[in-house]
Amino acid sequence: MEIYLNGSFMNHEEARISPADRGFLFGDGIYEVTRVVHGELFREREHLKRLDEGLNGLRVHLDPDVRNKIPEIGRELLERNRLTSGEASIYLQVTRGAAWPRTHTFPDTEVKPTLYMSAAPFKPHNELHQAGVDTISVPDIRWTRCNLKTVNLLPNTLAKQQARDAGANSAVMIRDGVVTESPNANIFGVKEGTLYTFPESNYILSGITRGVVLEIADKLAIPRKMVPIRQDELFDIDELFFSGTTTDIQPINRVDGKPIGSGKPGPVVKAIQNEYKNMLYQ
Amino acid sequence: MEIYLNGSFMNHEEARISPADRGFLFGDGIYEVTRVVHGELFREREHLKRLDEGLNGLRVHLDPDVRNKIPEIGRELLERNRLTSGEASIYLQVTRGAAWPRTHTFPDTEVKPTLYMSAAPFKPHNELHQAGVDTISVPDIRWTRCNLKTVNLLPNTLAKQQARDAGANSAVMIRDGVVTESPNANIFGVKEGTLYTFPESNYILSGITRGVVLEIADKLAIPRKMVPIRQDELFDIDELFFSGTTTDIQPINRVDGKPIGSGKPGPVVKAIQNEYKNMLYQ
Repeated sequence: MEIYLNGSFMNHEEARISPADRGFLFGDGIYEVTRVVHGELFREREHLKRLDEGLNGLRVHLDPDVRNKIPEIGRELLERNRLTSGEASIYLQVTRGAAWPRTHTFPDTEVKPTLYMSAAPFKPHNELHQAGVDTISVPDIRWTRCNLKTVNLLPNTLAKQQARDAGANSAVMIRDGVVTESPNANIFGVKEGTLYTFPESNYILSGITRGVVLEIADKLAIPRKMVPIRQDELFDIDELFFSGTTTDIQPINRVDGKPIGSGKPGPVVKAIQNEYKNMLYQ
Repeated sequence: MEIYLNGSFMNHEEARISPADRGFLFGDGIYEVTRVVHGELFREREHLKRLDEGLNGLRVHLDPDVRNKIPEIGRELLERNRLTSGEASIYLQVTRGAAWPRTHTFPDTEVKPTLYMSAAPFKPHNELHQAGVDTISVPDIRWTRCNLKTVNLLPNTLAKQQARDAGANSAVMIRDGVVTESPNANIFGVKEGTLYTFPESNYILSGITRGVVLEIADKLAIPRKMVPIRQDELFDIDELFFSGTTTDIQPINRVDGKPIGSGKPGPVVKAIQNEYKNMLYQ
């Protein structure tokens, strides 16, 4: 595959950055993953908006000319990798750049941020969307700026691996007695026909797909409350599902081996999936 | 400066890693910083022990042959950079390695961890040790596996920068109403002749210098309690100080502009500093 790195396109096996990059030394950077269908980036504007918010949040000053070229770079990546038809995903990461010597504070001298982008073919998890998935519950041990989409992703990585080791697809993270997120997706619950999810705050990422689900709820006249599912009511609710850029809308059948609702994808998640596919593949 | 990267020594400006390195994409790695005086690594054994614990904690499988060569590589770095006399520091980082495609879970195929080491001249902050420093208090927003010395360091970086922006030297981090750590050092308090510090747990890094301070307390017959300083008693205690590999023993004069004790380095921190310098420069 060809990737983009700091102004050049190259084979991913030849791409190289400095180990003094603050992405490598501190996880001092942010990222975005965007879905692509037949060459069209789904919800590109929202991803770019969140990117800008992340850059502001970390006070990383990406050259406006470079920032404005990001959509064009993404399209060129799709072309170079023959991904303009079918499905694909684009990964983008910006770090504060390479600085020597290493200091916890931002570098004294002006440092050029690192911009790394890659594209890859994408295969949606249709069988999981239809059948639903098993999960485990884990404590949400992340920091409390989860609204920033940074590459400080070790807690996410460890939770996802813990789920896999347990034979599950993913994890339902619990903080202060309520469901927050999965390691890489937002979580919605359905109780008596009403949709529930953790409110926008510093405890969750404001997922682009989460926003789409809320739009769909309004369109389908599904009442929605920005209230999280409590851990102690998990097995009394009717439905539970993930939403995410690469996860799509994924029903959760079980948590820690115990069924949610009927233990099968319910009517609300199916209706939302259906509408979501209409939007994604329109 | 010459650095070491995956088996080779090279100029730091020529060193390159893949952007697919999980250190860059996830902060999926750990690090150590060791002080060097006249070519001798201070408390090397403890740093290597913590390194091994970190590798186990993250389940990163560094080839035992490579792991066992680390002390030798450090010494060669000192020689190549003419750092065998005077003061220096050695930085070491191990990540899970480069894997393509990017997945939150550990890579399916066996991936070779990345080992990066560098050495640099070190100048202790003697004037700060003598005069003491001003600090600000900030919420400790880190994850809850602070006992692992990982490169997920964004909260530390942001807190340190926040302190600098406020004209302070560093930050005193508060979690659940008690003092935990600074962004890059442990914290001790002194109340009526007794030393207090946060107990070893998942909320702090078990600092090597922290351990040395506890040894010194025993040697000097200073009573010590593994109990944190509460935020509401901060301005009633007698002394407060940082301990860390590059921080050494650093008295804290003020937090948020208000004096701790007399607002000057007190007798207990001075006694500990003195003994610490004897051990470091023996």
